[in-house]
Amino acid sequence: MREIAVIGIGQTKVDEHWDKSLVELAGEAALTALADARRESVDGIFFGNMLSGSANHQQHLGAWLADWIGLRYSDAIHIESACSSGGAAFRAGVMAVASGEMESALVVGAEKMTDSPNAEITANLATAADADWELEQGLSFVAINALVMQRYIYEYGWKHSDFSQFSINAHANAVHNPYARFQEPLTENGYQKSPMISDPINLMDASPMGDGAAAIVIVPADTLAARGQVLITVAGSASATDSIAVHSRRDPLWLSAAEKSAHQAYDQAGVGPNEINFFELHDAFTIMAALSLEACGFIERGKGPRLALDGEIRPSGRIPIATLGGLKARGHPVGATGVYQLVEVVQQLRGQAGETQIQDARIGMAQNIGGSGSIIVTTILKRK
Amino acid sequence: MREIAVIGIGQTKVDEHWDKSLVELAGEAALTALADARRESVDGIFFGNMLSGSANHQQHLGAWLADWIGLRYSDAIHIESACSSGGAAFRAGVMAVASGEMESALVVGAEKMTDSPNAEITANLATAADADWELEQGLSFVAINALVMQRYIYEYGWKHSDFSQFSINAHANAVHNPYARFQEPLTENGYQKSPMISDPINLMDASPMGDGAAAIVIVPADTLAARGQVLITVAGSASATDSIAVHSRRDPLWLSAAEKSAHQAYDQAGVGPNEINFFELHDAFTIMAALSLEACGFIERGKGPRLALDGEIRPSGRIPIATLGGLKARGHPVGATGVYQLVEVVQQLRGQAGETQIQDARIGMAQNIGGSGSIIVTTILKRK
Repeated sequence: MREIAVIGIGQTKVDEHWDKSLVELAGEAALTALADARRESVDGIFFGNMLSGSANHQQHLGAWLADWIGLRYSDAIHIESACSSGGAAFRAGVMAVASGEMESALVVGAEKMTDSPNAEITANLATAADADWELEQGLSFVAINALVMQRYIYEYGWKHSDFSQFSINAHANAVHNPYARFQEPLTENGYQKSPMISDPINLMDASPMGDGAAAIVIVPADTLAARGQVLITVAGSASATDSIAVHSRRDPLWLSAAEKSAHQAYDQAGVGPNEINFFELHDAFTIMAALSLEACGFIERGKGPRLALDGEIRPSGRIPIATLGGLKARGHPVGATGVYQLVEVVQQLRGQAGETQIQDARIGMAQNIGGSGSIIVTTILKRK
Repeated sequence: MREIAVIGIGQTKVDEHWDKSLVELAGEAALTALADARRESVDGIFFGNMLSGSANHQQHLGAWLADWIGLRYSDAIHIESACSSGGAAFRAGVMAVASGEMESALVVGAEKMTDSPNAEITANLATAADADWELEQGLSFVAINALVMQRYIYEYGWKHSDFSQFSINAHANAVHNPYARFQEPLTENGYQKSPMISDPINLMDASPMGDGAAAIVIVPADTLAARGQVLITVAGSASATDSIAVHSRRDPLWLSAAEKSAHQAYDQAGVGPNEINFFELHDAFTIMAALSLEACGFIERGKGPRLALDGEIRPSGRIPIATLGGLKARGHPVGATGVYQLVEVVQQLRGQAGETQIQDARIGMAQNIGGSGSIIVTTILKRK
């Protein structure tokens, strides 16, 4: 496959953007990324978004955004893959440019969640779960994750408080990220006293909603080599599915789609977990951070919280995660999250991550999860 | 770009499928296409659907379908592009296989519209229009097309009855298509007496909703050459956008995105309109059939109905359209339509189109329109 390089990034702050529409947010991130790439146009646009049909009463966002940023008539497509929409859009863009059909692409992830009442958003987020077999039981999306966490705690003998460091690390890192929704630290006490949402998931185990957009410009790497720039390339890209309903899985405590897509990406990049310098994982809930670390081979099954308790997930640790706040503290505008993760990986690889810069970051991984592990997209970026 | 071949097709009848869910319909078409291709699996699934988030309370359909047809863990993605979701999914699949990232792909278009009350579906279909500038005026999607048709009639001096042959031809062809929703002929009198929906669009100017699914299996063409089969290849694939709102266009009576994508596809295929043997166009409304024929160069601006009145769009005419019923009579399950069109092109190129077989069909074109011309995907298939 033709090697792909990332040459531009852009993002808005994740926030409650009452004064901006979905296309305004997407446009802001897109134009920032184009400016960063020193380009005025691209051949194709890949727009990741989950909820616009219901939350914003607007579909086929590709055309909408193309027109808004002055690229009317260009090729554009909307990709929906629940909370992995952003990562999936990036992967589709990578394949399109790699095919030779396009010489450049703009990947945008955007979500505007505050246009709808929270109760409606909760119902819409639940469309990431199995309508016939999970939602029919009255489960919300948080409740499904709570069942998984409950079982994990029972099966492996952890306490709820053993998960605190996932959230504390995310908040500590977000303090320095101007694009993060929450730039305040979280204490152990704050974690333990936070209100219960769906036992055992409390408010500080869960990532917050938000409005936001992130964007990336990609081109074939060979068009840049001559210029002698620092090249950031896509070393691995893979996606795998699992059953949508958790109860249909052989093992509800194992993210098979994370394992499969991560190992495909490792093979493509010619690396293993030991070579990954940092990992922007999908910490929608603390339990998902633990499961991702296990499935991707950073620690053995059932031991995820160990990495957090030992400080190995901090910027100075063995496998830093959520280095700019993660879903927990940067915020989780669902369809945008996968692109935020990739933007942050690029910031780290460029050495532009500020206070939480990972030393000598050369290989970074991002993993974007749709549903409770139903579609998982893994991407490895590399600084050459 | 690596040449892509179509090796399998499948479809369900378009109907009110009260006894089948969206995934059952999609699965039926997918398994039929896989059997036709003599394959049990593919590397990736590309699922085109517009309304499932709202109409079926289910998102990220890729994972859902993969699991249902026994391909759990495979790569899968959902593409939404309003009524062009099917064509856009095919194009994404073509680029993925052409990139070398996959050696096979299954493209599925499916829509289950009868799960929701009609009033809700009407509101959801309107998300294909501009929420801020068209829907805010109270326009439904039919009403937007009615304004275009009204203007066209005024501007070019046609009468409403001059459009009848578009619908009559579609119904005449659908009589022989067992997958078509309406297999009854339409008379001139039946057209003229049909109830007005949104002046000047009457019931027989408009395509019907429906539930249905269609599927296609693609592989790189070079993997087949050795077997000496009849090869059907993707000779051209292009997509272009326009403003979502009709009033924002320089000329509301010209489908710029159809012109652009068709001409890109012509260039790729090394042909012009004269070499196209038949054209599965997007006759969601009779006016759109006329505008498509003009934008793609089959007749000059403002003269579209002439081709219909002269019988040139019939199977024996110069540019046959809707050869198996088109959107008008086969039915328009929105996100599935683009894949139905391509399946029908393959049926014609294989000589399997029955009573409405186009003689010596060698090059067929399909054009799938999202919104009122906002995203248009053009595909040219060729029998080698």
